Amino acid sequence: MNKIKSIGILTSGGDSPGMNAAIRAVVRTALYYDLNVYGITRGYDGLVKGDIVEMGAKSVANIIQRGGTILKTARSQEFLTVEGRAKAREQLRKHNIDALVAIGGDGTFTGAKVFMEEQDIPVIGIPGTIDNDLQGTDFTIGYDTAINTVVDAVDKIRDTAESHDRVFIVEVMGRDSGLIALRSGIGIGAEAILIPEAKIDFTDVLNRMDSIRKNKSSRIIIVAEGENEGGAFETAEKVKGRFPHYDVRVSILGHIQRGGKPSCMDRVLASRLGVAAVEGLIAGKSGEMAGIICGDIAFTPFDNAIKHIHTVNPNLLKIADILSL
Amino acid sequence: MNKIKSIGILTSGGDSPGMNAAIRAVVRTALYYDLNVYGITRGYDGLVKGDIVEMGAKSVANIIQRGGTILKTARSQEFLTVEGRAKAREQLRKHNIDALVAIGGDGTFTGAKVFMEEQDIPVIGIPGTIDNDLQGTDFTIGYDTAINTVVDAVDKIRDTAESHDRVFIVEVMGRDSGLIALRSGIGIGAEAILIPEAKIDFTDVLNRMDSIRKNKSSRIIIVAEGENEGGAFETAEKVKGRFPHYDVRVSILGHIQRGGKPSCMDRVLASRLGVAAVEGLIAGKSGEMAGIICGDIAFTPFDNAIKHIHTVNPNLLKIADILSL
Amino acid sequence: MNKIKSIGILTSGGDSPGMNAAIRAVVRTALYYDLNVYGITRGYDGLVKGDIVEMGAKSVANIIQRGGTILKTARSQEFLTVEGRAKAREQLRKHNIDALVAIGGDGTFTGAKVFMEEQDIPVIGIPGTIDNDLQGTDFTIGYDTAINTVVDAVDKIRDTAESHDRVFIVEVMGRDSGLIALRSGIGIGAEAILIPEAKIDFTDVLNRMDSIRKNKSSRIIIVAEGENEGGAFETAEKVKGRFPHYDVRVSILGHIQRGGKPSCMDRVLASRLGVAAVEGLIAGKSGEMAGIICGDIAFTPFDNAIKHIHTVNPNLLKIADILSL
Amino acid sequence: MNKIKSIGILTSGGDSPGMNAAIRAVVRTALYYDLNVYGITRGYDGLVKGDIVEMGAKSVANIIQRGGTILKTARSQEFLTVEGRAKAREQLRKHNIDALVAIGGDGTFTGAKVFMEEQDIPVIGIPGTIDNDLQGTDFTIGYDTAINTVVDAVDKIRDTAESHDRVFIVEVMGRDSGLIALRSGIGIGAEAILIPEAKIDFTDVLNRMDSIRKNKSSRIIIVAEGENEGGAFETAEKVKGRFPHYDVRVSILGHIQRGGKPSCMDRVLASRLGVAAVEGLIAGKSGEMAGIICGDIAFTPFDNAIKHIHTVNPNLLKIADILSL
Repeated sequence: MNKIKSIGILTSGGDSPGMNAAIRAVVRTALYYDLNVYGITRGYDGLVKGDIVEMGAKSVANIIQRGGTILKTARSQEFLTVEGRAKAREQLRKHNIDALVAIGGDGTFTGAKVFMEEQDIPVIGIPGTIDNDLQGTDFTIGYDTAINTVVDAVDKIRDTAESHDRVFIVEVMGRDSGLIALRSGIGIGAEAILIPEAKIDFTDVLNRMDSIRKNKSSRIIIVAEGENEGGAFETAEKVKGRFPHYDVRVSILGHIQRGGKPSCMDRVLASRLGVAAVEGLIAGKSGEMAGIICGDIAFTPFDNAIKHIHTVNPNLLKIADILSL
Repeated sequence: MNKIKSIGILTSGGDSPGMNAAIRAVVRTALYYDLNVYGITRGYDGLVKGDIVEMGAKSVANIIQRGGTILKTARSQEFLTVEGRAKAREQLRKHNIDALVAIGGDGTFTGAKVFMEEQDIPVIGIPGTIDNDLQGTDFTIGYDTAINTVVDAVDKIRDTAESHDRVFIVEVMGRDSGLIALRSGIGIGAEAILIPEAKIDFTDVLNRMDSIRKNKSSRIIIVAEGENEGGAFETAEKVKGRFPHYDVRVSILGHIQRGGKPSCMDRVLASRLGVAAVEGLIAGKSGEMAGIICGDIAFTPFDNAIKHIHTVNPNLLKIADILSL
Repeated sequence: MNKIKSIGILTSGGDSPGMNAAIRAVVRTALYYDLNVYGITRGYDGLVKGDIVEMGAKSVANIIQRGGTILKTARSQEFLTVEGRAKAREQLRKHNIDALVAIGGDGTFTGAKVFMEEQDIPVIGIPGTIDNDLQGTDFTIGYDTAINTVVDAVDKIRDTAESHDRVFIVEVMGRDSGLIALRSGIGIGAEAILIPEAKIDFTDVLNRMDSIRKNKSSRIIIVAEGENEGGAFETAEKVKGRFPHYDVRVSILGHIQRGGKPSCMDRVLASRLGVAAVEGLIAGKSGEMAGIICGDIAFTPFDNAIKHIHTVNPNLLKIADILSL
Repeated sequence: MNKIKSIGILTSGGDSPGMNAAIRAVVRTALYYDLNVYGITRGYDGLVKGDIVEMGAKSVANIIQRGGTILKTARSQEFLTVEGRAKAREQLRKHNIDALVAIGGDGTFTGAKVFMEEQDIPVIGIPGTIDNDLQGTDFTIGYDTAINTVVDAVDKIRDTAESHDRVFIVEVMGRDSGLIALRSGIGIGAEAILIPEAKIDFTDVLNRMDSIRKNKSSRIIIVAEGENEGGAFETAEKVKGRFPHYDVRVSILGHIQRGGKPSCMDRVLASRLGVAAVEGLIAGKSGEMAGIICGDIAFTPFDNAIKHIHTVNPNLLKIADILSL
């Protein structure tokens, strides 16, 4: 292995708050260790097309607090082909970039793994996704901000729910993962939380609504996109079917969950992982994701990081139940 | 006219941020002038049913900053009938309440007018609605907070729009009024603003998107619920039809627009109008809405207040155009 | 008068949220009317030194939501001299700039007036200051955001005040003007509001605290920097002197009041005034500040705009009294 | 040991955001397990004086999102004496309360330990303090919210710092602990972070400011209250002494750091610890603090929990250095 002199950085997949803080950390750490550092625009698409510029300390000034990603992100059909990846490799060669940091989620790391193995270039991943659905890190960058955004939004909805004695079914992001729903649901004191990982008997939820504090006037049910009851509108119908006198409304929070200023924790996480990724490359690592487990930096092979988790902490589900009295 | 000794207060219609600040102001002003004051729960429905409790200075402590309404709000079928209103009048008699403050929008004031004329009781209205669609006041309580909520949400959406080079069609509240769309659209720098009051040729909007800064990667179009292009999804289709390579997304902001902590301006407005309403009743006024026009308290007969406005300030529309370059 | 072909824009004095929205509006309006537009960095200092760059539509993209000013602001000793102003004029000539938009407060307009008269160049002012202390506009850009920032901060302080049964003396900005204190004080439900414009007998405030709801556990007194009781710490001593058993604390909000994302109203105000300023220059105006009075654009000669107002709306002071029961 | 039938709950010491979420969790968990639950007002002071009321599920409705503590908190001289604690024990006997949950920091737990041992009553502690300075839990309730509050405030200060090219010395809470300063300092991208745990040579900081990006116009230095350079104002003098041309300002964030709506993480943490505390008491535990270590509930004896930590993660300090280029 030769000494690394120059690294490239890209963001890929859905954007998440804190990606800019991670970019800043990667750029400045590279400079701190006297490496050159290049920003690749629009993820693997920009890599294939050579949309690459050198970055300095100042180019990442005043971005730590911004949502989104200054490097942008996009899908690339071309990168899915061997030819595309060969082009991408050629672009790196042209700029003398000899290692890559890829910020994103499981799609990003799947691509990174193929690219690294096929095109022989070291790649370290940084987990940037609001879904928190990667192994090898307690939290992904953006998750903390996203659950705060959900909680802020539902606090607002609660105001109107309380005023009108309404039941709200609120859909949050999470096609394959209920982690946003789970923590934000506890955070807003949800009546019930429906997530893909837990098959529940919705009749139990309805029975519970019937038996506990029947006179409770407003209730909020959080559903993850990918849950098993058929979605927010279907859930609303079920509630209405059982309690025809309830005023039931649906709210789909949607894309606001991806944006916004990153929370302090997301900024710190992103900063730590950005430093770790560059230091990892310098130390000769490749094919791994930098994460934080129990407060300490940990590296996890891409293969393990992207293994989908099909269970959630059962204690958290139980807590939601106990507290929704 | 006899001297008023006791007033009742209710909130009705859709809740809006700042209603609690108005309730607080009415209660404390009544006490300041040595009147008794009664809170009526769930609007006209609670009035008919006699859901009425006396309020003290402390009962409105620490609510000025809360969204929603502690008096709750509801629809009442019964109040729409003469019998229902007679019952309501009887409830007031029982509590020796000899005047009413009704906080809400046009439906609230329509009811108040009938009640006042038919049942012979003084009523003063306070404009509490996020829609800002009443005559006789520059702003209604809740409007300022609602447009800040929209702007905050769309700032978040912009982060992801910029990162992905996406076009977002964002639907905001306003079935009959485009005022939320108009000011928030200017506030977020929208590409176009579609409102019920303005029939536009959407082809012009599309042509403009084609000619001006074609390479502009992310764009946000704000549509009011009641606009004339067929809604957010239909608008998205039109954009996609013309620009198939654009990644077009829809976001319906929904009920978050009604909640949240009131802005300073909404709290001040609510405080001023609460004081004015009670002082108006004491001065013998009835059948009027308290508002603020050009910084000064103004009273407007209910009939005039609820006349729907079908035009908006054309300058604001022009500004939106100029600035979306 | 010759037709204007090119305008320069600068921000001067203390920064205020919404200045960027005004810069954006001036730049895009100029382009809309086929003018060239130049950004002058660091106010009059940059003008003297020739720190001037041409701006395009894209150079003001994605700034409407940002606090501060991308053109920066600074003091200039040199501009206070005839020689300095002559240099400044020469810089404009070099860039073929034949008119100026100056965003700031009374100091900015005082300088603008001298420069305009002495150096024969049209200047239009835009009121950008959190203090709201200018004549000729109902609100200055930044004021609405600043009072929301104060209200947010004091809502937080109230949480701890309530929990500990404490009295808080909170100092807000306003050396010569109590307008931030006045509206934010009403907005947070202050026990008392001390401002430069109102000489009050503080013994009355203390007596009132003694007589009304003596058992009220937490109280908040808002003091403007320039009030007449000797400042927040002196006020705290007076309260402690009278009520030794009270736990009295002081909080100086300080510089957070200048920053932050502008509110929707500030963005709309800035957008409207930016358009008006350029349209005013095109129409041949000079030596005036663009403002909004009762919803309509109004131009006010600099001399009148900067005349300090020594009174505040007495109704607002009375309202604060009534509501602090 | 007898089976517990009734528990009391109190908050003590400085309030922190999330205490209400913890109270809610304790109350509802107690009810879930068919225990009676009593709220004790104003901490140990209310315990001595018998300020105790029974709580139901509804009494903690709609408080999960509120800062401060609905049970209030206060100092108690009397509880520091044997007689005071005997009185307190008697009050519990009167209400048939046979176990206690105490939410607070090291002072709270020190009192709890003496009370428990001397008066023979089971007590479980919950860590509620913004300082995060307890052993036995990764985070204390309120810390996450506090660092977000700091980051929000300094983001605002940064706007004005950038606009004016100023250096800001920002003092944050932390008399004995630099943990608020450390994480928020990384979160805002501070130039330097001064904390009690790290003796640094400030000349190094000044040298660094001199050598790295000398033309960097705005810088922010975060100082914890208890750091070793003599405080924010003294630090400002040192910076001015070395760089007389810098415009150096001081901002003391103060009490806003204690208040505000709790973040999602603080709400979840508080909910989990509230459940754990009650389940711990039921399981026969006493004299321990419930905490979360690496995602799992852990109980730590009071003696260990309150042992002050005199070191911080050196990696975090290094990261701050690397990233402030």
